[in-house]
Amino acid sequence: MTVANSTPPKTETEAMSVADSPFLQAIVQQIRANDPYGTYRNWADELLLKPFIMSKAEKREIPVEGDIDPMTKGRIFAFYRAIAARIEEETGQLATVVVDLSHEGFGWVLIFAGRLILVSRTLRDAQRFGYASIDKMAKEGEKLTQKGVEMATKYSEVCDL
Amino acid sequence: MTVANSTPPKTETEAMSVADSPFLQAIVQQIRANDPYGTYRNWADELLLKPFIMSKAEKREIPVEGDIDPMTKGRIFAFYRAIAARIEEETGQLATVVVDLSHEGFGWVLIFAGRLILVSRTLRDAQRFGYASIDKMAKEGEKLTQKGVEMATKYSEVCDL
Repeated sequence: MTVANSTPPKTETEAMSVADSPFLQAIVQQIRANDPYGTYRNWADELLLKPFIMSKAEKREIPVEGDIDPMTKGRIFAFYRAIAARIEEETGQLATVVVDLSHEGFGWVLIFAGRLILVSRTLRDAQRFGYASIDKMAKEGEKLTQKGVEMATKYSEVCDL
Repeated sequence: MTVANSTPPKTETEAMSVADSPFLQAIVQQIRANDPYGTYRNWADELLLKPFIMSKAEKREIPVEGDIDPMTKGRIFAFYRAIAARIEEETGQLATVVVDLSHEGFGWVLIFAGRLILVSRTLRDAQRFGYASIDKMAKEGEKLTQKGVEMATKYSEVCDL
């Protein structure tokens, strides 16, 4: 994959910057943590997040038959691990991510602490995982984080099992 | 796979029969439910469970590098789905099984209802999944079922989320 060393194109409204969102920072951290050869060392944060952003037309071009691309799987992991990391920061509970993906792009993502499920999502057409804009991705990540934090707070006893 | 149409060999002590164990019956049900071509229609229950039984020596012969055999994966699913089915019978809670297996045979199995994890296991060397005897498998299945039922009863509020 070759990537032009330029800033990502702006959407109609000025795109959110990574500095504005603790969740986007957490995703960037996940990606950099999984970069043993330093491939992304000199990449801007915004550039790292570019593959997460996809228009509806771009999504339609991706076939949903057959296996999920390993890069796409990596992005799904990074997204949910970032949520787990954010919940850990907020609650101090150790959160684990489990992804059960069939070869048809259908499956489950669970984030759990102890015996409590903090985030539970079903995935469909996971081959087309992506968000319409960086703002939408940030909002979705923050929302799931918030709900996870609420669960962990309300049922902390079950987290500690 | 060809299988001699004989009764399975007895272990030193007389092997437990399927009729004695609701859990073994539940596994047999899982296997028969996933038999669209009726391959196993005329097989005795005990014969269906034979591939779940493995001696230590037999396990050592299975390499733990590389992918998990699809038949082994199928047995892992059947085992945990049987536990989920048993918990459903006992509690009325709908239980879902999620299996997250890496290509190296390491991973997680979770059985959950609502936001509560009823059974949580880490898998190691999943390529070698199997039990030393049918009695040991039955005991393990009944034990996990019982613990799951206790969880579902104690934290039924979290199951209903």
